[in-house]
Amino acid sequence: MPAPTPAPSASPVRRRAGRPTAAILDQDGITTAALELISSKGYDGLTMAALARTLGVAPSALYNHVSSKDDVLVLLEDHLAAMVDVSAFGSEPWEEAVRKWAWSYRDVFSEHTPLIPIIAVLPVANAPKTLAMYEAVTAGFRDAGFPEEKIISAIVAIEAFVFGAAYDVTAPADIFDAGTLADQVPNFTAAVDRLALEQHERPTDVAFSLGLEALITGFGALRG
Amino acid sequence: MPAPTPAPSASPVRRRAGRPTAAILDQDGITTAALELISSKGYDGLTMAALARTLGVAPSALYNHVSSKDDVLVLLEDHLAAMVDVSAFGSEPWEEAVRKWAWSYRDVFSEHTPLIPIIAVLPVANAPKTLAMYEAVTAGFRDAGFPEEKIISAIVAIEAFVFGAAYDVTAPADIFDAGTLADQVPNFTAAVDRLALEQHERPTDVAFSLGLEALITGFGALRG
Repeated sequence: MPAPTPAPSASPVRRRAGRPTAAILDQDGITTAALELISSKGYDGLTMAALARTLGVAPSALYNHVSSKDDVLVLLEDHLAAMVDVSAFGSEPWEEAVRKWAWSYRDVFSEHTPLIPIIAVLPVANAPKTLAMYEAVTAGFRDAGFPEEKIISAIVAIEAFVFGAAYDVTAPADIFDAGTLADQVPNFTAAVDRLALEQHERPTDVAFSLGLEALITGFGALRG
Repeated sequence: MPAPTPAPSASPVRRRAGRPTAAILDQDGITTAALELISSKGYDGLTMAALARTLGVAPSALYNHVSSKDDVLVLLEDHLAAMVDVSAFGSEPWEEAVRKWAWSYRDVFSEHTPLIPIIAVLPVANAPKTLAMYEAVTAGFRDAGFPEEKIISAIVAIEAFVFGAAYDVTAPADIFDAGTLADQVPNFTAAVDRLALEQHERPTDVAFSLGLEALITGFGALRG
């Protein structure tokens, strides 16, 4: 048990030993440790045992805060959702609000691609920050005159585009280099070369912008 | 060493022992075994050692056919690409060709979601069937009057949508059930309930169709 007022020289040593104090065993601490685990060992590295080890606590202490790995996933889902910018819904035109939301959403998930397969299919129940994101977006669509029965489908479609585009951000620059097979695919090779000539922005941003603007225009036409 | 003409009763026993004959140690056999491994143990279960075990051969025999796990991934990429339907490019109107390609692409990957994180960022060099798919699509866009410098960006955008939508096919039906938090997100809950009332097709198909048609309309307007 640490002394109430440890000597300044003792405290760093205690912390460097890798057993954080119980003070960080809250939802934020668990979330941070889970993200660290996934980023170092991949999603399969996230187990309750490994999480307890990372936090420097006994598994039983961890189970006082989260009852299962599913609870941890909901914390991660909420952590990422809270970073997505929905502030323009209600304050800026619908088109601009969708644009800011989608770019921000893509940027957040491009930094956390190992979580995409999980979060893309994770129920939103018990995830208050995720639900708050959906509520802001839904209200923005409704207030812009979007037919209510199409709002969820439109959100799902934009999210699908965002998740796939998040992977593309992390693709290698030479992903479309046909190499020794270039002669066999002349149209493709010419189009790839032509894009390289035109390119001023990142190719992944050009593609995202092209698709997103088509979705915004197409969905915008559905408004009453 | 097996007898040249084994007795009929001996042959099945030999096969049931789980060591397939060398005859199947070709690219198709390796691809099939790799897909089996991933479907039973997840993507992390795909190692050269596990693949050799599944095929019932020594790792050295496997390395005679594929020099690394990267080679196996290219086989998988090509296997899936060959299942995607590009036949309408060149024979049907551009809109219908894109539609058939995208629906088919989504359906193939919705059956193989563990491979999405890999294939979404995998270089196409050395993947002749994948390149053949891109060549057919690129030629179809070019012949339809699509500006050459935008073809790759449009393809990347549609693929992003397809990959994300493939996950959505596998999402649980209650993914948007807000549960005990429903009262806190009234607009979202109303939109989810409204969609359920309207629904005749699968919700995932309604969302995919909505997004895809917006992309086709938006990209169609870019044609000369």
